[in-house]
Amino acid sequence: MSESRFANRVTRCAELMRTQNIDVILLTRPSNMFYLTGDGRLCAYAMISQSGQVVMGVPKTDVVDVKSSARFDHISGFDDEVGMIHSIGHHFEHFGVKEGVVGLEYTFLTRSMMSMMMHPHAKPEHVNSADCTHIMSELRSVKDEEEIRSIRAAAKVADRGMNAAIVSLQPRMTESQVAAEAEYAMRQAGAEGFWRTYVSSGPRTSIAHGIPTIRKLKKEDLVMIDVHPIVQGYSADICRTMCIGHPTREQQSSHDQYLQAQQAAIAEARAGVTMDQLEQAMHEVLIHAGHQNHIFGPPIHGVGIEFEEAPLPSGHAFFHGEKAPPPLKTNTVIAVGNCGLYIDDFGVRVEDTIVIGKAKADILTKHTREMKM
Amino acid sequence: MSESRFANRVTRCAELMRTQNIDVILLTRPSNMFYLTGDGRLCAYAMISQSGQVVMGVPKTDVVDVKSSARFDHISGFDDEVGMIHSIGHHFEHFGVKEGVVGLEYTFLTRSMMSMMMHPHAKPEHVNSADCTHIMSELRSVKDEEEIRSIRAAAKVADRGMNAAIVSLQPRMTESQVAAEAEYAMRQAGAEGFWRTYVSSGPRTSIAHGIPTIRKLKKEDLVMIDVHPIVQGYSADICRTMCIGHPTREQQSSHDQYLQAQQAAIAEARAGVTMDQLEQAMHEVLIHAGHQNHIFGPPIHGVGIEFEEAPLPSGHAFFHGEKAPPPLKTNTVIAVGNCGLYIDDFGVRVEDTIVIGKAKADILTKHTREMKM
Repeated sequence: MSESRFANRVTRCAELMRTQNIDVILLTRPSNMFYLTGDGRLCAYAMISQSGQVVMGVPKTDVVDVKSSARFDHISGFDDEVGMIHSIGHHFEHFGVKEGVVGLEYTFLTRSMMSMMMHPHAKPEHVNSADCTHIMSELRSVKDEEEIRSIRAAAKVADRGMNAAIVSLQPRMTESQVAAEAEYAMRQAGAEGFWRTYVSSGPRTSIAHGIPTIRKLKKEDLVMIDVHPIVQGYSADICRTMCIGHPTREQQSSHDQYLQAQQAAIAEARAGVTMDQLEQAMHEVLIHAGHQNHIFGPPIHGVGIEFEEAPLPSGHAFFHGEKAPPPLKTNTVIAVGNCGLYIDDFGVRVEDTIVIGKAKADILTKHTREMKM
Repeated sequence: MSESRFANRVTRCAELMRTQNIDVILLTRPSNMFYLTGDGRLCAYAMISQSGQVVMGVPKTDVVDVKSSARFDHISGFDDEVGMIHSIGHHFEHFGVKEGVVGLEYTFLTRSMMSMMMHPHAKPEHVNSADCTHIMSELRSVKDEEEIRSIRAAAKVADRGMNAAIVSLQPRMTESQVAAEAEYAMRQAGAEGFWRTYVSSGPRTSIAHGIPTIRKLKKEDLVMIDVHPIVQGYSADICRTMCIGHPTREQQSSHDQYLQAQQAAIAEARAGVTMDQLEQAMHEVLIHAGHQNHIFGPPIHGVGIEFEEAPLPSGHAFFHGEKAPPPLKTNTVIAVGNCGLYIDDFGVRVEDTIVIGKAKADILTKHTREMKM
């Protein structure tokens, strides 16, 4: 990745900081650090000044490694948490900031971490905090060509993982073992990692977050599989619902209606359309099919460095301290089909990752959407 | 798991709440909810009153599923985030709490989640918040026999995962592919999941958190593997450092010295000893061997529902808003060997999960500690 790419991002960040009167941004969320510097890791931080200076702090063991991947103006290696806090205070001095506002990630920092960041040793007395989540979301929502190439690569790996899980399906294997097949295939196909894999089966397909258990698959079960590989630091998101055997008529029709609703939303997706409009397009089809009481959860979210990131649907955005998202722009990447259809003893879902274009969307995850195996 | 087990835990929780003047505890951390009710999941909450009443709130899709695994007095299913907040407010009424203190998880709730929990719709006006992290830590630090059986089962699965990763090692495979072998084997062996797998190789063995990359292993590389399966809701923690080929004399001696230090700490581990004393036991051996500048990070932490939980070393505890841990008690489970030895271009680490006994510790993870394959 080119040096200038990160320099440009920092310049745009500094511009937003100036318009919003934020003097320094202090990041600890790995995805935000990765976006601005090329390196995001645990127990580390990055600080950005209004003039576009970037400093990083990492465990002293990591300084050499970070130098090989990150773009910054200055780096500190610290011994422990106390050293980390002191080094942050030191960088305020280095930036010449004695008063004003430090932007912190209110949607990432825990209450106790917030206290540490506001500790008298971590910042000058007259520096107050404000949330900077929306600034980072605004920067990250529209992807550049290199980012889209990475997400496209992740989508290919997601398809591979999905396929491996589906071909493995048979009665008596556990949900966890289905997840194992997807994850193994994704790492073999070049993923450096993945976000949590969801696999649920039978009546568990109707719960909101199907974290795998050791429940054994039974003949005729529905199985819902949702995977999120990470490739070159970027994610993709795909979900499919399969049947081990012959779906009931109700299962098949619910699946077909869900798929029709998802495809209707994707057909509407283009620059200038809002997330709420796409949600409405999905809901219209589902409600028309008699599913008004079976819909749960927002159906659309952004995809990028994290598999679930801004733009978030307006309800979610509010809850997470973000602003409602503006109309979609070209090269925003979203996943469509995140809400489930929850019938009494089963659920169905079909989700794909798409890139917003001027006239239509480009669907990156391509695995077949048939429920029958 | 027996009903009375959770009732007893809630009774002990309510006793601590009374002594510390906390009227209601509001939990959203899945591990804490799991401990007190038998079910912990995302986007859900549990509230406990001083009289030992337990209410839960989950997405409406999950009510049936939660009823099959959790012990509670009342449950609410909500439609969305706004419904969640309102249902919390409703439960304060149900408890008859109009003023006082609500205990929140300051080490888990983000700043923005804290704001939602303190929203006028989520609680009565005259209810203020206090951190309840230390109460949950105190409850969870000493394990009962059933918990130890689960951690023992997780340790066996951890050994299986470690073995699968180690026998797979060969030049040209990626760090991520090594992780794949461990994770696949753990899910096959009965794990319902795992916490993040760390695999680092070559010079990357000297960084603090070795998240796998697609770096390809080379002949003579050191490889550090750290796995954390989840079995019956409980975790284990094991780390080994291997060499693909012949370690240098310095690598071999550093590894032997680290192992000697780790074993010295384990030999000291028994009821009544402090975490700091064990850390000192490790450091003495390492410093005697000339490694005073190569030590980084606290070497010991608790293991249970989470692979890294209370008791935390005192520095870490402070940073995470917890109190320094009291002397170890019988049936506390800890991992020993979490600090690395960071030499210039390589690092070594050996970590095991142990149960504290009256006279000595029981080592649960048993995979051979030899560096040569």
